[in-house]
Amino acid sequence: MEPAIFSSLVRLKPEGPDTLVVQLYRGIRSAVLDRRLIAGEALPSSRAAAALLGVGRNTVNAAYDLLVAEGMIEVRPGAQPRVATLDLGKPGGVADPIRLSERALAAMVPRRRGLSEGRLAPGSPDPALFPADAWGGVLRRAARHRQDGAEGYAHFEGLPELRKVLADQLHRHRGLVFTPDDIVVTPGTQASLMIAAATFADPGDSALIESPGYISARATFQAAGLNCMALPVDAQGANPALADFSNARLVYVTPSTQYPTGVRMPVSRRLAVLEAARGADSIVVEDDYDSEFLWEGRGIAALAALPDAGHVVYLGSAAKSLLPGLRIGWIVAPQGSASAIRAVQRRLGLAANVHAQAALAEFMAQGAYRAHIGAISSAYHDRLGIVVSALTGALGDRIKLSRPDGGLQLTALLPEVADDGPLRESLNADGFAVSSLSDYFLDRPEQGLVIGFGTATSRDARRFAEALARHLDS
Amino acid sequence: MEPAIFSSLVRLKPEGPDTLVVQLYRGIRSAVLDRRLIAGEALPSSRAAAALLGVGRNTVNAAYDLLVAEGMIEVRPGAQPRVATLDLGKPGGVADPIRLSERALAAMVPRRRGLSEGRLAPGSPDPALFPADAWGGVLRRAARHRQDGAEGYAHFEGLPELRKVLADQLHRHRGLVFTPDDIVVTPGTQASLMIAAATFADPGDSALIESPGYISARATFQAAGLNCMALPVDAQGANPALADFSNARLVYVTPSTQYPTGVRMPVSRRLAVLEAARGADSIVVEDDYDSEFLWEGRGIAALAALPDAGHVVYLGSAAKSLLPGLRIGWIVAPQGSASAIRAVQRRLGLAANVHAQAALAEFMAQGAYRAHIGAISSAYHDRLGIVVSALTGALGDRIKLSRPDGGLQLTALLPEVADDGPLRESLNADGFAVSSLSDYFLDRPEQGLVIGFGTATSRDARRFAEALARHLDS
Repeated sequence: MEPAIFSSLVRLKPEGPDTLVVQLYRGIRSAVLDRRLIAGEALPSSRAAAALLGVGRNTVNAAYDLLVAEGMIEVRPGAQPRVATLDLGKPGGVADPIRLSERALAAMVPRRRGLSEGRLAPGSPDPALFPADAWGGVLRRAARHRQDGAEGYAHFEGLPELRKVLADQLHRHRGLVFTPDDIVVTPGTQASLMIAAATFADPGDSALIESPGYISARATFQAAGLNCMALPVDAQGANPALADFSNARLVYVTPSTQYPTGVRMPVSRRLAVLEAARGADSIVVEDDYDSEFLWEGRGIAALAALPDAGHVVYLGSAAKSLLPGLRIGWIVAPQGSASAIRAVQRRLGLAANVHAQAALAEFMAQGAYRAHIGAISSAYHDRLGIVVSALTGALGDRIKLSRPDGGLQLTALLPEVADDGPLRESLNADGFAVSSLSDYFLDRPEQGLVIGFGTATSRDARRFAEALARHLDS
Repeated sequence: MEPAIFSSLVRLKPEGPDTLVVQLYRGIRSAVLDRRLIAGEALPSSRAAAALLGVGRNTVNAAYDLLVAEGMIEVRPGAQPRVATLDLGKPGGVADPIRLSERALAAMVPRRRGLSEGRLAPGSPDPALFPADAWGGVLRRAARHRQDGAEGYAHFEGLPELRKVLADQLHRHRGLVFTPDDIVVTPGTQASLMIAAATFADPGDSALIESPGYISARATFQAAGLNCMALPVDAQGANPALADFSNARLVYVTPSTQYPTGVRMPVSRRLAVLEAARGADSIVVEDDYDSEFLWEGRGIAALAALPDAGHVVYLGSAAKSLLPGLRIGWIVAPQGSASAIRAVQRRLGLAANVHAQAALAEFMAQGAYRAHIGAISSAYHDRLGIVVSALTGALGDRIKLSRPDGGLQLTALLPEVADDGPLRESLNADGFAVSSLSDYFLDRPEQGLVIGFGTATSRDARRFAEALARHLDS
């Protein structure tokens, strides 16, 4: 394509309401849809396009990512991007391109960061450890048994028997004291975060989020209209001394097993977090997503269980202990907020599948859940050891691994890497679904990788260590 | 209580950032929590409190409703409101009252409007018609069979086999032509609405919503930061001539069976809606929540299936055809938006339970779903007839019933009723979970009732007609 033709496709307005990325994306998209660009036609490389348009190469790459995600263009390594072959219908009948929201465009950009399928994906438990036969049995009984109106819109906050057994389990194993009426069952932690954000904060309010931290917590809070600020994480977990709590309505922390580093927050730090939150009238959101399989000692109760914990919203989930696909999580309401959380949950329609709830209640009441936790904790601990040995053996001081006390992933700092994006892409191309550590930061990112060990075999660990060494050397 | 003491509890500031309702609620709540008001103490009636404070009685009632919902005070018919007996812990250890968001307070107000349990609840299908044994069998097989990564975070947009059979079913029965890649499976229609709102609109954008219409659609759009405007409904459904489309990013309609009136939109009106939306570059959200059991002819395809329908997002659900508790809905993306909808769904974490998805896929593929639809359509049609006969027989011209072509509820206009709130409360007290029609309007409310017939028996219908006649006469 002639450079002048490409430039004519897009008229970038730096002062316009849309970002340059969005303007560039829309310009090319419209040209494809109305056939000014035809199937197979080559576009300039991101470097050439950036020079032609006088913008940064990152801007062009982000716009191209959106177009690739939408199937408008195709990118092959080492070749120019090309317009994809689309079925646009008869020439006269092309609909106007549909207008997407800014937040949808923002959601699409990271889709190419990290694969959802592949070896060593962070956060993924091993489905082979799921007790499928036993679950199938309790599930069938649950479906055949009338659930006292909960098949409809009654007990929208969760089945009474599940809330009862959860109150009992969380008291015994996490030290929490509350009644079943304080609990609300949701379709997973992100739904719980959405409900917590809507219950305690209004659009325009601010939230402190761990950095590095759970990317989806940030996304959910932003979807609820909140501004997210960094709560820096050090070797003891989130450090309240490094953040300004004064405007934070919500403070998101993972004290049991920091995500993604895996460190456990000591009691002194826990008290400091609670004190900072109390001083600022902030509400702490404690995400206890995989506290169930801590292996290095089991001494520390939940943050919400500390004396005078005050305003702590406790979130739990069966995603890591059983299966993400169950879509079951729970919220324990701080004093005086249970009615509000129930009202918001109902208003947003975020209830969990009734048969999975009934099955989980029976599974917990039978004792099968605790037995399962014991079995998987031991399996995951072994797999962590396999990955750590392989990486330490192959790379020695060139890699600095976090020391998880639980969870399903660890972080690897790579001092000799200046940009973890291309490294991660190379590893993804090798079939490893590891993530860039820098993506987990809200500010001052460090370069490295987040590595899941939930399904890791010795072969995975060895091949991954070899691949990483090869890419670091190249 | 002395009037002066009550007045001293609350210092209302008309210019303050909080509404008078919120100020009054917080003042009384703090007084209960710090024991200035003690258990059993009487508060002034809403009429007396309104006079003392110089505010409207509705303001006091709304604040009292919040306090009742939270369990802070108790209201008995014909008696003064009283402070409830609360376990506040040891006197020194009372935590500061937790601060709720404005949107949580708004969500709590309507909690007393309409019961969730009781006879003749609108929108509720009959759980006794659910094929529990057959479902239990397919569910067990689904749990025991590996789902190709979908137990984890793969296929977050829905199981491939469910999306395939949905594409086939929606083509055959609703006239829609699309590929399985255009479909996203969600935990129900409200989750679908949240995803649609976030994909196509940003906070501060506006949406047109049917009035009267589905209250939860309004709530979900508001939670997504949208301003909701009224799209008036007449005997042909939503009427675009009565609304200004120019600022509407989204237009929410229920053309198959208008909620709650039950009328079906004729083709001429459908074309008018599409034309108005096209002219304003608005995106139509078609909620086809119970199109599956239209009984008065089956001729009209979905709005999204019309030629040149343009930008229509089609939403469906198994809530009415099978069970609300399954929490399964689906979105069909308009051209050019499937990637964006998938990205937003993933970012918000709104996936459906994997075993319920697999079971639904098998149930549909077997033909069991269509057979079930046939059976329940006939049952619900009979129940509608029973309710209409009883009401017409008992009340004649004093009641004006809508004539549903489908759905699970009908509306009753009551010309002699000036305020349907007290009437609905009396009927709720009789055990009927009917709703006030006026609550379904965004502007210019009409007075009446919304009556569900999903579980109606002859005895329900007769007793309800008698109760309604009695209350109208008193």
